[in-house]
Amino acid sequence: MNTFGRIYSFTTFGESHGPAIGGVIDGMPSGLKINLDRVQAELDRRRPGQSALTTARDEKDRVEILSGLFEGITTGTSIGFIVRNADQHSRDYEEMRTIYRPSHADYTYDMKYGLRDHRGGGRSSARENISRVVAGAFARQALETMGVSVYAYTSQVGDIALDKDYTQYDPQLIETNPVRCPDPATAEHMAELIKQVKADGDTIGGVITCVAKGVPAGWGEPIYGKLNARLADAMLSINAVKGFEIGMGFDGVSHRGSEMNDAFVPGGKGITTLTNHSGGIQGGISNGEDIYFRVAFKPVATLLKEVVTVDRDGHGTLLQARGRHDPCVLPRAVPVVEAMTCATLLDAALLARTTRL
Amino acid sequence: MNTFGRIYSFTTFGESHGPAIGGVIDGMPSGLKINLDRVQAELDRRRPGQSALTTARDEKDRVEILSGLFEGITTGTSIGFIVRNADQHSRDYEEMRTIYRPSHADYTYDMKYGLRDHRGGGRSSARENISRVVAGAFARQALETMGVSVYAYTSQVGDIALDKDYTQYDPQLIETNPVRCPDPATAEHMAELIKQVKADGDTIGGVITCVAKGVPAGWGEPIYGKLNARLADAMLSINAVKGFEIGMGFDGVSHRGSEMNDAFVPGGKGITTLTNHSGGIQGGISNGEDIYFRVAFKPVATLLKEVVTVDRDGHGTLLQARGRHDPCVLPRAVPVVEAMTCATLLDAALLARTTRL
Amino acid sequence: MNTFGRIYSFTTFGESHGPAIGGVIDGMPSGLKINLDRVQAELDRRRPGQSALTTARDEKDRVEILSGLFEGITTGTSIGFIVRNADQHSRDYEEMRTIYRPSHADYTYDMKYGLRDHRGGGRSSARENISRVVAGAFARQALETMGVSVYAYTSQVGDIALDKDYTQYDPQLIETNPVRCPDPATAEHMAELIKQVKADGDTIGGVITCVAKGVPAGWGEPIYGKLNARLADAMLSINAVKGFEIGMGFDGVSHRGSEMNDAFVPGGKGITTLTNHSGGIQGGISNGEDIYFRVAFKPVATLLKEVVTVDRDGHGTLLQARGRHDPCVLPRAVPVVEAMTCATLLDAALLARTTRL
Amino acid sequence: MNTFGRIYSFTTFGESHGPAIGGVIDGMPSGLKINLDRVQAELDRRRPGQSALTTARDEKDRVEILSGLFEGITTGTSIGFIVRNADQHSRDYEEMRTIYRPSHADYTYDMKYGLRDHRGGGRSSARENISRVVAGAFARQALETMGVSVYAYTSQVGDIALDKDYTQYDPQLIETNPVRCPDPATAEHMAELIKQVKADGDTIGGVITCVAKGVPAGWGEPIYGKLNARLADAMLSINAVKGFEIGMGFDGVSHRGSEMNDAFVPGGKGITTLTNHSGGIQGGISNGEDIYFRVAFKPVATLLKEVVTVDRDGHGTLLQARGRHDPCVLPRAVPVVEAMTCATLLDAALLARTTRL
Repeated sequence: MNTFGRIYSFTTFGESHGPAIGGVIDGMPSGLKINLDRVQAELDRRRPGQSALTTARDEKDRVEILSGLFEGITTGTSIGFIVRNADQHSRDYEEMRTIYRPSHADYTYDMKYGLRDHRGGGRSSARENISRVVAGAFARQALETMGVSVYAYTSQVGDIALDKDYTQYDPQLIETNPVRCPDPATAEHMAELIKQVKADGDTIGGVITCVAKGVPAGWGEPIYGKLNARLADAMLSINAVKGFEIGMGFDGVSHRGSEMNDAFVPGGKGITTLTNHSGGIQGGISNGEDIYFRVAFKPVATLLKEVVTVDRDGHGTLLQARGRHDPCVLPRAVPVVEAMTCATLLDAALLARTTRL
Repeated sequence: MNTFGRIYSFTTFGESHGPAIGGVIDGMPSGLKINLDRVQAELDRRRPGQSALTTARDEKDRVEILSGLFEGITTGTSIGFIVRNADQHSRDYEEMRTIYRPSHADYTYDMKYGLRDHRGGGRSSARENISRVVAGAFARQALETMGVSVYAYTSQVGDIALDKDYTQYDPQLIETNPVRCPDPATAEHMAELIKQVKADGDTIGGVITCVAKGVPAGWGEPIYGKLNARLADAMLSINAVKGFEIGMGFDGVSHRGSEMNDAFVPGGKGITTLTNHSGGIQGGISNGEDIYFRVAFKPVATLLKEVVTVDRDGHGTLLQARGRHDPCVLPRAVPVVEAMTCATLLDAALLARTTRL
Repeated sequence: MNTFGRIYSFTTFGESHGPAIGGVIDGMPSGLKINLDRVQAELDRRRPGQSALTTARDEKDRVEILSGLFEGITTGTSIGFIVRNADQHSRDYEEMRTIYRPSHADYTYDMKYGLRDHRGGGRSSARENISRVVAGAFARQALETMGVSVYAYTSQVGDIALDKDYTQYDPQLIETNPVRCPDPATAEHMAELIKQVKADGDTIGGVITCVAKGVPAGWGEPIYGKLNARLADAMLSINAVKGFEIGMGFDGVSHRGSEMNDAFVPGGKGITTLTNHSGGIQGGISNGEDIYFRVAFKPVATLLKEVVTVDRDGHGTLLQARGRHDPCVLPRAVPVVEAMTCATLLDAALLARTTRL
Repeated sequence: MNTFGRIYSFTTFGESHGPAIGGVIDGMPSGLKINLDRVQAELDRRRPGQSALTTARDEKDRVEILSGLFEGITTGTSIGFIVRNADQHSRDYEEMRTIYRPSHADYTYDMKYGLRDHRGGGRSSARENISRVVAGAFARQALETMGVSVYAYTSQVGDIALDKDYTQYDPQLIETNPVRCPDPATAEHMAELIKQVKADGDTIGGVITCVAKGVPAGWGEPIYGKLNARLADAMLSINAVKGFEIGMGFDGVSHRGSEMNDAFVPGGKGITTLTNHSGGIQGGISNGEDIYFRVAFKPVATLLKEVVTVDRDGHGTLLQARGRHDPCVLPRAVPVVEAMTCATLLDAALLARTTRL
């Protein structure tokens, strides 16, 4: 399935080495003046080649909007967009036609479909994220009119982790370093680790923390469309993500209810909570506090050293990946996490309008 | 939204203190002889009052199947079912009409809908799990004809955690103790902790590990319906769940790709992997290995001691919850985790049939 | 698929001779005081045994609401309901276990599912309409708060047809006769025809006209969820319906654009049209004028005389249907057409709220 | 909503005078060698400027496939495609920025969205059909591997109608004339009428008949996804369609059940029917006979003569449409009807695989 969302939804297409990546955004409300430069700027944050920490591929990734805007304003009709592929070195991938890279999607695609476009990962390439970032960038501009802002940052690379919670970091500092970590000193250590891993032809995982501020109480469906479940679905749909936790998450399980409960207190604009261990969602519905969650990324599967694997016929073989690959996806995954969060929240915002008579 | 699933799907209804809980299962393939005793047996596993560790509420929870079976065999038509509510002490909840329990869904329901059935948690009550368990029990019987089995167990309560991975435990031991932990010695410690927490009028969280064996390669959608994303969505839709991780999950982020990749090797029935850090899913699609994941449950919000909170008007107040509540939901959540997993997998199995020409 | 609708949706279950018929309504907005007597009254309009024109089966069809209301008001949670089956003469249907009634769903169910509940038509029985009527009755009460009213009437039985358009008939007269035709003189002729057809052991078809007043401009999706397409989908989902036309429909094709176009003119509350050949929908979206359409019902397939047919093995055989059947479904289908229209319109109303920023 | 279908589905975008029209096809099974020339050939059948009967606009409408094929074979991933717009005379439409064309979607779009792209009809333009034709052309090639073929033809223009049923006409003759009518003599009369109407600056409607052969018994959902309901939904989603009837349709209502029932008889490959008044679908499920239905198109709303109408402010005004428009859409709508039928049938084919255990 290539569609995400119920009302604000998007449907994507595109293989890494095909003519283009793109998609269709549906359910965008009418009447919003769109800043297309900001949409492009989000894509630029995801683009490879931004720093020495990421792949050297030079992808321009210029988005072309094909519909849905009239004189710069959303019309409520679907928004088609494409990003042409370029700078492809398809020959780098010829071996992968018959050889399965370990922990990649090569084997499972073959088992599911009986064939696959092996060039550059084909449909399973992280270039698919381009479409998510575009859909998220539109959603973000709609959310801003509702007072909602979303940011994410790299909170862990390998075993180097930020040790304080999100409230202790200044989001303004995230973009000051190529790791996208709001603590510059830690960012430097992370950068060192990534460079070292890269020098070894290896890869490393990490954690991204995401925060949504300004979400009013009442968004999210209470049973199967719980807002936390939608966010988990959104995050686990991103390549390499292996875990999701909201609020206190896994750490909360060892505490008692009397420690974990968020006491209600009278607040400025109504009722608020003293603490926010819940991460802004209770019973699947936002409670007006900050929403925050953490997303675990495994290390990238494609190593730049020779690995033992098998081919389609099950024969053992050696594989030396050539292409150009990130030693660590975290820095470039930050805008993807933000994008999926924005799309999920705008969908919830629109659904929330249907709730009361 | 009260529906889960695309092809094999179910839609539920019911409040804790209303006349009944129930639902409709859609997309159940025709031609399966159903063992209704086993469906009821699953419900009995979820039922309160099974042991001293759980609430003393005595809920019979007899399921009545209203359609979709003919002479004991599924006909492919929708399966309606109800479970009558009984043993309700609605008066225990009168205070909660206007008072919000901390970290419960009382406040968010009111903010979303403007009113709520406050008795026994209303729609947000864990009694809604009854419908999930029924839908999962049907799915399980269909999956068994495909060679798929699913089990879950309590792997952590508070800070008492099993320290080995799932392959080191015998699933036959899970039901030998009321905690549903396959290590009897650890189970006893967990039971002690739960009793102690209960004596304090407090609650405690924990982790459930779930394993699916026999899933063939090729189930799951590669982009937005990734099998891991659907499982995360399913798990986060369960009350009190705050985290999900598959395979090595959060622990995997600090390892290098060269350690985490699962090497392919020629296997008995085709290609297999030497390790299974991926948890049986790569690129969103099952790879034929065991699927395993962990689910974090926060401590139950309802404490049996006086707490400070606010009422609808924002005035501070004290609340002494009366009703009967679990100090720890883990033991009774095990069948719910299994049920949601079974429903998710059967849906994926049916969708997988549409993949190839 | 047993679900209808996107936001206001309902999922149904139940076979004619099983324990019960029922369903779950989802997406009902919160805060509506429901008149349950009016819900039951809609069911009574559909009930068999109302007059000499319909089957003599005496079905009480008492609806039991199981959830979603609190102190008589909708809470926004799903509404479960059941209607117990009774007065079943399952033995009347024993022959149909292996024999296919011509133009009925017996054969196609067997071809699709490999088995079926043959008693009383099983899932293909018109008793499934009970669930539609309940879902429509709830929708109608929500629509009334928006100023929308819906009514339908029998406009043709066999070749006896009303010759004027809907604006020429007083809807108050519809319920004054058992045919549900607003022209009492024509109704009498229709009744005569039905009695004669019944005496012959035969059946007869007809047309129902449906009108929705007060729908504001702007409901309906412009491309694939066109309001007229949703209505057509809704109508063709009713047993025995073979045609749908909106506005001038098939008659409009032989006219020229200059005759058929509805000229805009300044109106009391804005812009209105001089004529309404479009039937209140243009470009898939309501334009504020009356919505009206016609629905063609074929004659009931089950005849009360001996017919030649085949059995499961393809052997020719004779069938003498015994049960009790309507010679003409039109009178009892009127509330079903209204119900499906109400559900479709409420869904469109809620979706329309998500359109503009 | 810009998506059609459940498993085989497509999502479209594009305004008449924007950069491009296009879409994304999802759920296309893998392993099909696609003949792209045939896809383009379907588009050419829909293209304006084919004959003197249609608009003089010269639209090249070359489809570019952007993904989903690898070495000419479907991979099971989504298929993105675009068709660049060209030959636009946007200035012809400047007046329509503020003036509402009668019976067009101008007014309803404004009421729904608050603004619209007025150039060439914007999103409501019949150019959106391009995307349908592409999606249908892919579906047709998949259906052919299942032995299913689909054709449609113009059976009525104004009051000139074919008087025999579809079995009496040779589908090979459809493309022998620009009207796409399989009876050449009648086609000539229809062509005369269209020319005369065009000379008057007027427009005329008509009827298209569509036939699907080779559909096996068992496709279609029995309750809300009835195959006939899905086809009605598909047809009414096409611009200008005001009616749908299947099998005997509206004509069947005046006949008795004993005349209309299709007697089962032992057939070559199993059970067949003596007649086919049902149009190949019984109880919502295909019965293995030919599926045939009729679709009513109203005359095109845009006249090439001056008409009285109103502007956005409700002031009366005169409008002289300039652009280039079809006097009769029937000939070019034939491939659109076929396309929507093919997409609907392939979706039903794939869903049918999930039916039995």
